Amino acid sequence: MVWPWPRLRFQRCYNVPMLPTIDRQDDVIVMVDQRKLPAQEVYVRCRTVQEVAKAIRTMVIRGAPAIGVAAAWGLALGVRRSTAKGTRQLAVEFQKMCDMMASTRPTAVNLFWAIDRMKRAFAEGAHAGESAEELAARLDREAQQIHDEDVASCRAMGLHGAEMLSDGARVLTHCNAGALATAGYGSALGVIRAAVESGKKIAVFADETRPFLQGARLTAWELVRDGINTTVITESMAGPLMRAGEIDAVIVGADRIAANGDTANKIGTYTVAVLAHEHKVPFYVAAPLSTIDLETADGDKIPIEERDQREVSHLGSARLTPVGAQIRNPAFDVTPHRYITGIITEKGIFRPPYNESLKRAFEGTALRA
Amino acid sequence: MVWPWPRLRFQRCYNVPMLPTIDRQDDVIVMVDQRKLPAQEVYVRCRTVQEVAKAIRTMVIRGAPAIGVAAAWGLALGVRRSTAKGTRQLAVEFQKMCDMMASTRPTAVNLFWAIDRMKRAFAEGAHAGESAEELAARLDREAQQIHDEDVASCRAMGLHGAEMLSDGARVLTHCNAGALATAGYGSALGVIRAAVESGKKIAVFADETRPFLQGARLTAWELVRDGINTTVITESMAGPLMRAGEIDAVIVGADRIAANGDTANKIGTYTVAVLAHEHKVPFYVAAPLSTIDLETADGDKIPIEERDQREVSHLGSARLTPVGAQIRNPAFDVTPHRYITGIITEKGIFRPPYNESLKRAFEGTALRA
Repeated sequence: MVWPWPRLRFQRCYNVPMLPTIDRQDDVIVMVDQRKLPAQEVYVRCRTVQEVAKAIRTMVIRGAPAIGVAAAWGLALGVRRSTAKGTRQLAVEFQKMCDMMASTRPTAVNLFWAIDRMKRAFAEGAHAGESAEELAARLDREAQQIHDEDVASCRAMGLHGAEMLSDGARVLTHCNAGALATAGYGSALGVIRAAVESGKKIAVFADETRPFLQGARLTAWELVRDGINTTVITESMAGPLMRAGEIDAVIVGADRIAANGDTANKIGTYTVAVLAHEHKVPFYVAAPLSTIDLETADGDKIPIEERDQREVSHLGSARLTPVGAQIRNPAFDVTPHRYITGIITEKGIFRPPYNESLKRAFEGTALRA
Repeated sequence: MVWPWPRLRFQRCYNVPMLPTIDRQDDVIVMVDQRKLPAQEVYVRCRTVQEVAKAIRTMVIRGAPAIGVAAAWGLALGVRRSTAKGTRQLAVEFQKMCDMMASTRPTAVNLFWAIDRMKRAFAEGAHAGESAEELAARLDREAQQIHDEDVASCRAMGLHGAEMLSDGARVLTHCNAGALATAGYGSALGVIRAAVESGKKIAVFADETRPFLQGARLTAWELVRDGINTTVITESMAGPLMRAGEIDAVIVGADRIAANGDTANKIGTYTVAVLAHEHKVPFYVAAPLSTIDLETADGDKIPIEERDQREVSHLGSARLTPVGAQIRNPAFDVTPHRYITGIITEKGIFRPPYNESLKRAFEGTALRA
């Protein structure tokens, strides 16, 4: 099979094929290298679970839901390619793979959620006395299901969230919560896509999102590709635009939502939320239920990843800061729930008080015990 | 005379010589090229008034007070090198030089203030029947005086402002309001320098300040050079730092302060002010009286320069945004006076209501009629 995928294999969104964030091709997990977009459209082919873990750690693939899907595919691949003798040894190896995968990035809860689902699938198969081959097939099916559910969740989020956007709305988004951050279609950008598909005219302002520039590079790339009106701004421009009445709503994604609604998302989200609050602009978070972590009581308990200083001090090989200056590089921040107008999920839009509404979100779902 | 200047010619600040932002060397105006710092310390030598205007427009030199000083030196140079026949023709040429200089950048009022002073000096000389040579000498003296007054103002601002900073204070600044933005010592960074010189331990957080990266490149460079503890952050990190209680005060410069205290400064300043307000962190503006424009009633009437999209879409030759995405690039924003704790000037610190206090600031000064 030739890469990139045949166009018709993908659901069509606004007359272009859906973005190929990640997919399995026989024994290879293929991802578009998000570090190189939009300058280059390069695909990374991971042949081992270690390579998938490295792709997550180095941000070849990023975005909480996409990280979860990648972890699932990686573990399925690891089991399929294992040379363990017998299922007992395979179980030991699988546990190690899960530990390695869990150590890649600390903040996005979808990673741990996906690993848990794969562990549960493995345990069920092992309990049923399945062979190594049968276990591998079971994990493949589980990964595919996680993948498919993610796209379906994005579609459902889109339908719920699109109703919040009126025709002509000018929407600010931060970082990339798009097709590239999910298995496809996107969470925050899924809402925008659904609004556009329903015939509304939407203009998007994309915060460039330093230091990794997910907004300038990824959000702008995938929205322009879909023919959606997109303007890139530096993060410093969002406040003046709101003050001038040029932003009607903010929609962002999430890396982890605590039980009380506090939301960890890409660094800069908190600032956008404070600005939206100050200007009375509605501020929505769009994320699948797999991003909601009822076991984390509030945002203070969400671990925040501190990444390499070089992401701030350099751009490519160009040094931006002088030698001798210290650098801080927390990759995420926490937006307290009081700034959040609503949380858009595949089950509908949840409103404050989140401690109650988010608990209700899980009633009757198989996502949480 | 060899460039860079002999070290001892400069007042010493914290054991290193004061930064050579701009100076006259015989018939040449020399500026450090602020587009290239900190990677390269390159000096641009302007031999004509046109070259000085171009240096202002292309941001070889930037920062409201420094722009004023450069304009003054440029006009003095233009008159000195003029080949006009007689003082009447010289007056016509001088008016054209002033018009050209005034068209370089629209927001910083110091530019227009300096041009006005040079015009007044010319008119006084012409009224006294001075020869072209005498007029040139008069304009040279006026430019030197504007230059020297600027350094003295920064020193005075430093003394007044330093009292606002307690020992151990962690201070956030945005853009560069330092030695490089003035004839030397700096406005906001002058306050920090004065606090350090008085024996206080100060830690500075420098917003990197997209798109031109004045914070990452210039503020960090000049503070590290002075041995002051400096940490560069992306603008998105200021909010979480304030929320964590890690910022005790904010000090920024200004490009134009309206009569009611509304302050135009580098894009992003408004966001920092809103964040400071939300977290009850004092927010100070440090600027010389020449930045206060009593003829502009409020911030809505300050013209905001929109610069080339390429500053946002590219970094050097590297393209950051996809083709097809629109770009916005307003270079400044306006912070309403209600967010400003105090305005630090060479005459002391002015407090709300600014409509009254700023008017008083000019009483008994020769700066305004």
